[in-house]
Amino acid sequence: MRAEILSIGTELLLGQIVDTNANYLAQQLPALGLDLLYISQVGDNRSRLAGAFRQALERSDVVITSGGLGPTEDDLTREAIADVLNETPQVQPALEAHLREFFARRGRSMPERNVKQATLIPSAKPLPNPIGTAPGWWVEHNHKVIASMPGVPHEMHKMWEEQVLPRLAKRITGGGVIVSRTLKLIGIGESHAEEAVGELTRSLNPTLATYAKQDGIHLRMTAKAATQAEAEKLLQGFEPQVRARVEEWVYGDESASFPAMVGAMLRQRGLKLATAESATGGQLASLITEAPGASDYFVAGYVTYSADAKRALGVSAETLERFGTVAQETTSAMALAARQKANADVAVATTGNAGPGASEEKPVGLLHTVVDIQGRQVCSETRYSTTRTEYKRRGALDALFLLWRELKHDVKLS
Amino acid sequence: MRAEILSIGTELLLGQIVDTNANYLAQQLPALGLDLLYISQVGDNRSRLAGAFRQALERSDVVITSGGLGPTEDDLTREAIADVLNETPQVQPALEAHLREFFARRGRSMPERNVKQATLIPSAKPLPNPIGTAPGWWVEHNHKVIASMPGVPHEMHKMWEEQVLPRLAKRITGGGVIVSRTLKLIGIGESHAEEAVGELTRSLNPTLATYAKQDGIHLRMTAKAATQAEAEKLLQGFEPQVRARVEEWVYGDESASFPAMVGAMLRQRGLKLATAESATGGQLASLITEAPGASDYFVAGYVTYSADAKRALGVSAETLERFGTVAQETTSAMALAARQKANADVAVATTGNAGPGASEEKPVGLLHTVVDIQGRQVCSETRYSTTRTEYKRRGALDALFLLWRELKHDVKLS
Repeated sequence: MRAEILSIGTELLLGQIVDTNANYLAQQLPALGLDLLYISQVGDNRSRLAGAFRQALERSDVVITSGGLGPTEDDLTREAIADVLNETPQVQPALEAHLREFFARRGRSMPERNVKQATLIPSAKPLPNPIGTAPGWWVEHNHKVIASMPGVPHEMHKMWEEQVLPRLAKRITGGGVIVSRTLKLIGIGESHAEEAVGELTRSLNPTLATYAKQDGIHLRMTAKAATQAEAEKLLQGFEPQVRARVEEWVYGDESASFPAMVGAMLRQRGLKLATAESATGGQLASLITEAPGASDYFVAGYVTYSADAKRALGVSAETLERFGTVAQETTSAMALAARQKANADVAVATTGNAGPGASEEKPVGLLHTVVDIQGRQVCSETRYSTTRTEYKRRGALDALFLLWRELKHDVKLS
Repeated sequence: MRAEILSIGTELLLGQIVDTNANYLAQQLPALGLDLLYISQVGDNRSRLAGAFRQALERSDVVITSGGLGPTEDDLTREAIADVLNETPQVQPALEAHLREFFARRGRSMPERNVKQATLIPSAKPLPNPIGTAPGWWVEHNHKVIASMPGVPHEMHKMWEEQVLPRLAKRITGGGVIVSRTLKLIGIGESHAEEAVGELTRSLNPTLATYAKQDGIHLRMTAKAATQAEAEKLLQGFEPQVRARVEEWVYGDESASFPAMVGAMLRQRGLKLATAESATGGQLASLITEAPGASDYFVAGYVTYSADAKRALGVSAETLERFGTVAQETTSAMALAARQKANADVAVATTGNAGPGASEEKPVGLLHTVVDIQGRQVCSETRYSTTRTEYKRRGALDALFLLWRELKHDVKLS
């Protein structure tokens, strides 16, 4: 079946916002077996919008839209659909009452213009929106479907997951279900991850797709079956095969946050953490403190940017003189000093050259990382070819990966 | 004149990449006086692509495309344009020689499939691409224009600025030129900035547009005139009016980086900087070290996440006991201690509650910031309603804004 996405709103055409909604939806469709052939952005203009719906209904089976469901005169998605289907929107008393309640719960009275959000045409059913005023529309007409959702991303995501996705899955699989599961990987690149899972990416049911994200590589497995139980069973057979090939890098499922995952290991073992950063300049501490409750285990971070600050932390003048500020030995001394000074059990330290210029004749992109767990140290040396900002971001992530890998393997600690 | 954008590539329809090219181009068109009515994403399919070009040429005067100019069989932009105009692509010896040179300079021989990047149709002129193998196409046909550029963003941006924008400006203004200038603002929200510039946003030449970006608010002024000198003159008359209304928040022009700007002020005055962070968890140090050469002035950052770490920095047990870890008094003591401990002239400190839970009965989103310049302190208290990540990002930016404002006003230091 052919699908098409319409993103509606003049702000898209003025370049005021990036169309992340289309990207979100595009990622969701392959798992449903839908072929996405077109994405279009259209402004808040009734006749152009109606034209876009007319064309979409001609060439596609499923039309998915976001935006244009607000209460103002500029919000014309409902009107355009009604024009194309030659139907008339009518206020639905039940929807209107619900909308007035939504405002009342927030201690406000409903502006009268919001009434238009309580309208439907005969071909449309409402899609509940528990976190906003705009219900969606599910329209069936001549064996075609239009699913219209709000443009606010978190409202759209919720309505997609809870309302549109199950309805589409039912329609496409004839009552079947689609279940997805994600494994998140760290410390490995996308092409390396694809190589590792090998021919599993060609599996048809479940399917396997890889995505490079800010928090690592995501592997998404998607199964289709007649029932939830059968889909789960397919995944239960498939997931261990995937895991077996990437075990070393998997840190959790869709809900996992990498800093929180490392934090949970530290909290569970009662270990306190400190950092000493030069090259990553505070980014490692910032990454660690992304996790809510990080104060349970993260005690102190030292951004020892100058040689003086490294000496004050406890790195000896001899070490600095002999090896320089960018060196494994110096990083190692920083980790030891940070652990002792903060009275922590574990420390992570970095030195390097984030660029853009060379320093101390050390090449741009070089990063030394040392993890110190109760006196046992592990070192890593990496070279990045990227911008200063990205060097810091990836360097911090890889430093935390080194800590995580050691904590995982250090059974004596658990 | 009506414009339309086509973003070409199956990876867009699979959700593998977000279409930032369309957003970039959409932002550029209003200054040209072009009305952008449609943006479409189309996959690498010759007949669907030709269909998209046919439709775009029917309803728009200018069609701007990115993607599909590579050397592989999937790259079909040239073929689709040729199909629609009923012309035949021919290899151009001069382009081919240039392409072979491009590879030779990199010490490689050209793969034969790249020859198709040296083709043109009679209606097309090549647009040079000094940083990639794919030249663009500038096509004029029946008073309509197609400008096709590569999909790689930095190649596209360069080709747009150097080749397409001047050609379009000439065509639209009849030989005139368009000149833009940007002011970057910090410490102010977008709606507040719009309010401040007031009726200037309705100016027709130069125009004034506001954009909310990660590094603050951008105000872009764009003038059209017959010559470069006249356009510059228009801007010279307009810019002071804009500046006068937002002076307090302007930190630079299009090329300015906020951390580098603050760093330049510190470097110039020979001031050394230290930080002491609790709530921002290292993000402030990380922001400061975004600037190349930050080691000239940034000596040390302390991420004193625990009460013990705050005591070790030099905050008295009495202060912590009496005011708690989230308090202006504690923040003030941290700033003083950090400045002294790091032997710096200036220090910035933060405490607060990044959430998601309340702590010490301090509300989620609260942030205290203190700037200490050679003993003189300035305090700020803010509440953010946002995520933990965004709290840290904005908190660090606002803390640096506080420092910048004080450095600017502190004439005794300069």
